Amino acid sequence: MSPGFVLGIDFGGTKVALATAPADSVDRPLRKVRLPTLGGEGAEQVLRRTLEAARELAGGSGTLQAVGVSTFGVVRGDTVRLAPTVPGWEGLELPRLLREEFGDTPVAIDNDVNAAAAAELRWGALRDVGTGLYLNLGTGLAAALVVNGQVVPGAHGAAGEIGYLLSTPGEPAFAEGHAPLEEVVSGHALALRGSALLGRTVSAAALFDADGDPSVRALVDGAVESLAMAVANVCVVLDPERVVIGGGLMGASRHILPRLAEEVRRAVPFPPEITSARFVDDAPLYGALALTLTARA
Amino acid sequence: MSPGFVLGIDFGGTKVALATAPADSVDRPLRKVRLPTLGGEGAEQVLRRTLEAARELAGGSGTLQAVGVSTFGVVRGDTVRLAPTVPGWEGLELPRLLREEFGDTPVAIDNDVNAAAAAELRWGALRDVGTGLYLNLGTGLAAALVVNGQVVPGAHGAAGEIGYLLSTPGEPAFAEGHAPLEEVVSGHALALRGSALLGRTVSAAALFDADGDPSVRALVDGAVESLAMAVANVCVVLDPERVVIGGGLMGASRHILPRLAEEVRRAVPFPPEITSARFVDDAPLYGALALTLTARA
Repeated sequence: MSPGFVLGIDFGGTKVALATAPADSVDRPLRKVRLPTLGGEGAEQVLRRTLEAARELAGGSGTLQAVGVSTFGVVRGDTVRLAPTVPGWEGLELPRLLREEFGDTPVAIDNDVNAAAAAELRWGALRDVGTGLYLNLGTGLAAALVVNGQVVPGAHGAAGEIGYLLSTPGEPAFAEGHAPLEEVVSGHALALRGSALLGRTVSAAALFDADGDPSVRALVDGAVESLAMAVANVCVVLDPERVVIGGGLMGASRHILPRLAEEVRRAVPFPPEITSARFVDDAPLYGALALTLTARA
Repeated sequence: MSPGFVLGIDFGGTKVALATAPADSVDRPLRKVRLPTLGGEGAEQVLRRTLEAARELAGGSGTLQAVGVSTFGVVRGDTVRLAPTVPGWEGLELPRLLREEFGDTPVAIDNDVNAAAAAELRWGALRDVGTGLYLNLGTGLAAALVVNGQVVPGAHGAAGEIGYLLSTPGEPAFAEGHAPLEEVVSGHALALRGSALLGRTVSAAALFDADGDPSVRALVDGAVESLAMAVANVCVVLDPERVVIGGGLMGASRHILPRLAEEVRRAVPFPPEITSARFVDDAPLYGALALTLTARA
């Protein structure tokens, strides 16, 4: 008898990724599909198109055993929070809407970074780690804390949301509509600032290689310096044995990792190992598949 | 038949406190004793005098069921680390020495701040808290993280050692012999700096009330500002539901708590409740008694 299959869905800010996998080896996707989020057009159409794609992907694959879902923002109880990029996603009752779609099939849901950390814990660079840190350097900036080999959700699903860290006392912060560290360090912020400096559109990754321009160099150096202090400080707080770093900016890892490692070695009493994540492009989708292993009806 | 009794020992930088309690109500000390640490005279005499006092205290009390021990520094495997104030304490094989003294009687050992957090979890302001933070504002500065209702040790026993947090990228840090935040915020640091400013010996607590002097006011304001940013940042990382603050500086809590609460409300997406600890003077001693409940032979 077929073991059936699972479905993973990753809602990202620019794309939605879906995959099916055999229920007895969920890390081996059978079929994958991607669609653009088209965030500006609102939450309703994202969810509708995604569920249509899910039905199509799942058709004729056997019995759907579990669904894992990762999303930008954070999942707090019955709603998604801290998700300003797609109008209507903030406050969306995603768990209920998914239960309505999938009926009695168990569904697990978490934010994208926690899901990526779950994939690293199951199959990647956090395997066998008791106390660890997963850091996502992507369009946004966030982390996941691992304690006792499990991702720590926090009291409101927001543990590890390090984009909100302060670097200077009193600087504009969450309550004033800011994410102070993310505005300096994330791929989105770097691309915006770099494009303004150069008078043309550049990606964050390209900035790291455009080190001839002193103003670009200062921008990138400042970002890495702020990130290094933040990562060192999170390590002081958590005392992890390993820090695993993934996300789109890891294409520039040779410019970033050595300086993170140096600041961590300097500031942390017991410096953790720092390594690249196993999953880079598809981390939250693999995370969604990993979540199917803990899904409950 | 008598339930027997337990013994708690708290090794502090200036005093050692011991208490016995009935094994069936370990939060009700029967007898207490204190001795000066005399840290300058080294680790060996501290331990010898403490164990003498323990024998005397325990004599004729019935059967010793368990021993709980809290100490400054952090406990990593078989040794104490990060304990520079008493020569010989750093690297001391305290767990082995205690096993030699107490034989088959179960002994549990943890650092003083983790122990204080354990007491708050059992009997105090952290009761029923899943994700929380205990902050000790005393002679030193440290915290304990609580996840799933348990104190998080970290990979090397050093989780929560926030005295090592950086406030500025590249500032002198652990590897250069510094504890950057503790050097600005702790009772010890404030007393030293305040005494130098005023040309006479003052306690940190007294500085908070001496607000007529502008230089003292700037010193205290700067310390509270740095502390507030650090506490807000730890809350961003951990997403606790409650922050509980104890330690000797809480005598000045009316100068400290409102400003911490303000920065936390401003910077943290889901601001936790901030309250005073239940145990103030005797927190690590009650913590040592709480540890007896988890002691294993």
